[in-house]
Amino acid sequence: MLNFDRSFDFQMTQTEKTKINETFKALKEEMSSDEIGYYKLPQSSQEIIKKVEALHVEDFSQIVIIGIGGSSLGIKAVDQILRPYTKNAKEILYLENSDPVSINLTLKKIKKEKALFFVISKSGGTIETTSIFKTVIHYCSLDLNGDDKNRIFAITDSGSALSDFAKGYEITQFNIPLNVGGRFSVLSAVGVAPLMMAGFDMSSVLRGAGDFIERFFGGSETHLLEKAYYLNSKSKETPINVLFSYADRLENFTKWFVQLWAESLGKIDTNGSHVGLTPVGLIGAVDQHSFLQLVIEGTRDKTVTFIKIEDFKDDLKIPDVTLKNIEKTNFINGKTFNTLINAQCDATMQSLIDAKVSTDIITLDFVSPQNIGALIAYFELLTSAAGVMMHINTYNQPGVELGKQILYKNLQMES
Amino acid sequence: MLNFDRSFDFQMTQTEKTKINETFKALKEEMSSDEIGYYKLPQSSQEIIKKVEALHVEDFSQIVIIGIGGSSLGIKAVDQILRPYTKNAKEILYLENSDPVSINLTLKKIKKEKALFFVISKSGGTIETTSIFKTVIHYCSLDLNGDDKNRIFAITDSGSALSDFAKGYEITQFNIPLNVGGRFSVLSAVGVAPLMMAGFDMSSVLRGAGDFIERFFGGSETHLLEKAYYLNSKSKETPINVLFSYADRLENFTKWFVQLWAESLGKIDTNGSHVGLTPVGLIGAVDQHSFLQLVIEGTRDKTVTFIKIEDFKDDLKIPDVTLKNIEKTNFINGKTFNTLINAQCDATMQSLIDAKVSTDIITLDFVSPQNIGALIAYFELLTSAAGVMMHINTYNQPGVELGKQILYKNLQMES
Repeated sequence: MLNFDRSFDFQMTQTEKTKINETFKALKEEMSSDEIGYYKLPQSSQEIIKKVEALHVEDFSQIVIIGIGGSSLGIKAVDQILRPYTKNAKEILYLENSDPVSINLTLKKIKKEKALFFVISKSGGTIETTSIFKTVIHYCSLDLNGDDKNRIFAITDSGSALSDFAKGYEITQFNIPLNVGGRFSVLSAVGVAPLMMAGFDMSSVLRGAGDFIERFFGGSETHLLEKAYYLNSKSKETPINVLFSYADRLENFTKWFVQLWAESLGKIDTNGSHVGLTPVGLIGAVDQHSFLQLVIEGTRDKTVTFIKIEDFKDDLKIPDVTLKNIEKTNFINGKTFNTLINAQCDATMQSLIDAKVSTDIITLDFVSPQNIGALIAYFELLTSAAGVMMHINTYNQPGVELGKQILYKNLQMES
Repeated sequence: MLNFDRSFDFQMTQTEKTKINETFKALKEEMSSDEIGYYKLPQSSQEIIKKVEALHVEDFSQIVIIGIGGSSLGIKAVDQILRPYTKNAKEILYLENSDPVSINLTLKKIKKEKALFFVISKSGGTIETTSIFKTVIHYCSLDLNGDDKNRIFAITDSGSALSDFAKGYEITQFNIPLNVGGRFSVLSAVGVAPLMMAGFDMSSVLRGAGDFIERFFGGSETHLLEKAYYLNSKSKETPINVLFSYADRLENFTKWFVQLWAESLGKIDTNGSHVGLTPVGLIGAVDQHSFLQLVIEGTRDKTVTFIKIEDFKDDLKIPDVTLKNIEKTNFINGKTFNTLINAQCDATMQSLIDAKVSTDIITLDFVSPQNIGALIAYFELLTSAAGVMMHINTYNQPGVELGKQILYKNLQMES
């Protein structure tokens, strides 16, 4: 279960109610018209579950993901947070970046005979992914015309170059619905197929997301629309939105959120203005010793959303050790780290409230596939709602095209 | 060697020249009066080098760091970037956060008989560090009254509770100069002792930093003062400063920078105003698929500094593999990943320049201890210069005290 609470004042006037209702309608329209597909992934991805179940791949101990951005961030997020709670999950290696040092290090970790390879690219033409995939084929001497093709899976849009490649070699492919963008694709084949193969309970992740989306469209999670309204209405005063997660293993989740928020909302709006809200991902209690000073005493241009896990289900007691000359630290003895980290979260939130920084908090009763599914759905819906209010296209990313063109021009001129 | 280049226009008027000269004088004064100690660490830490050399600790294969914030970020930064270039570096484990899942996972990796333990806290009273240290003592059954004390090292201010503890058990301690703050302490015993024990060439790191600081005070790196001036003068228009490093292994370095910049510059100034510049750490090419859209099309409130490594010295060629139906990707064959990632860096920078975003770039000819030392010194000096111009105390962090008080109150009331 997810609980939501907030410290910021929010008195709804008629104007605000109208705007919120309009946004709700616009999202319903996006969903029911099938213009935007992620809302229905909890249902449509049941097909992916069945397809994976039917695969009967045996004798593997490792999964190698070749993908970047929307084709890896969501997988890494779910992997990291659920792994301590998932028995016998297979190892997953990630080949993302075009950094030669990273690629060399990761290649050495591949157990060729025990690995499954997922090459993931929505467009099918991502340069890092293509370059790394070729390198893996060469390094592992994969024979695409022989049995090796049974250990390779492509996840891509139907009709893409990568899809044509898979057809050419009769490699199993999973398709991403065309109306689902990369950063909204974690609950499509992109996340479901490899994570399920690795042993994660993706049916429950989908159920958690589906239930949350259903509650939202049923009108029971309106706090989300109010928050989107608040963040957008304060975009001049507080253009920076901090996500402060009190759990190390939510670090990849915060990176997933950063992509979702930055790439969706950083846009030129229908009036031709540059708009956007800047996400910052922090981890508590570590970043109390880093970024927190800036939030409290620096320019008051930030809101802060906390994520807290009530019960880590893997607790550890601070032992009853007395150390010479620091006996005064004994007050901590016998407490648990679960208590400590959550007391730190509470104290930090209270100090921000005292400093009049707008805060809100999402509390998970514990980490479960359902809760993580709901958390994913929450942030996706929040992003869509903010996008409607900002009068932008939430789902494209035209700004990065110029860099790609320059890159291709430079690389081809060189060859 | 570090090379610096920038795209932003900067015509110096007399006012600007005066301000820059005043800042230069103020920094010289901080240094020569010994008010601020980090400037002289490249010299004063020679003593730490000698002390470590004299230790003759043998038969260990692992170093366990117990520390958080300024007591771990710098160590992790140097460790991560230099490790692929350092032969036989010992494994380092980090126990930082009060997250029970992390602590449990890391405890299991400790090889008790082969580990050295560094407990690091400038103030000596950090709650995470104390709690974890007690847990490690208990978990590893360390006998502080027996031989085990020879495998424990304390790094702290002289006169701190942790220092008294070390004295009480005759545990070797290294002291941090009192005029060196936690986030400026990586070149003090905090970084030098454990990293040198692990096998990193800290003498060369210190030399690289020392040479850079000498060149700066000799008047040869004035571009740094100009940049500090520029960033501060544009703090209203572009309050967000992005550090975009094109190398996976600079991720911890960007986290170190984020602490340095955020905690140093997020302050109430001498006029009582909340001021600050917000750092964001990105990794290229990965974050081209995430945050870049926001920088290019979103609100134009960001500057971007690139870090590029000219020669990774660990290159990898994209093999001459032709894949059915995607033969058009063959243009990449035969190029190296070193070429690709740097072409991506150049193309991204060019696209930002075209979008009129202020950018600059730091190019390392390659990764070496000297270059990393210089890079550390560069960002420390830049931070100090910006602090002078912002009329703040760069070196304290009063804002986080309230949260600590609330925490202690809550925890003690509970007990």
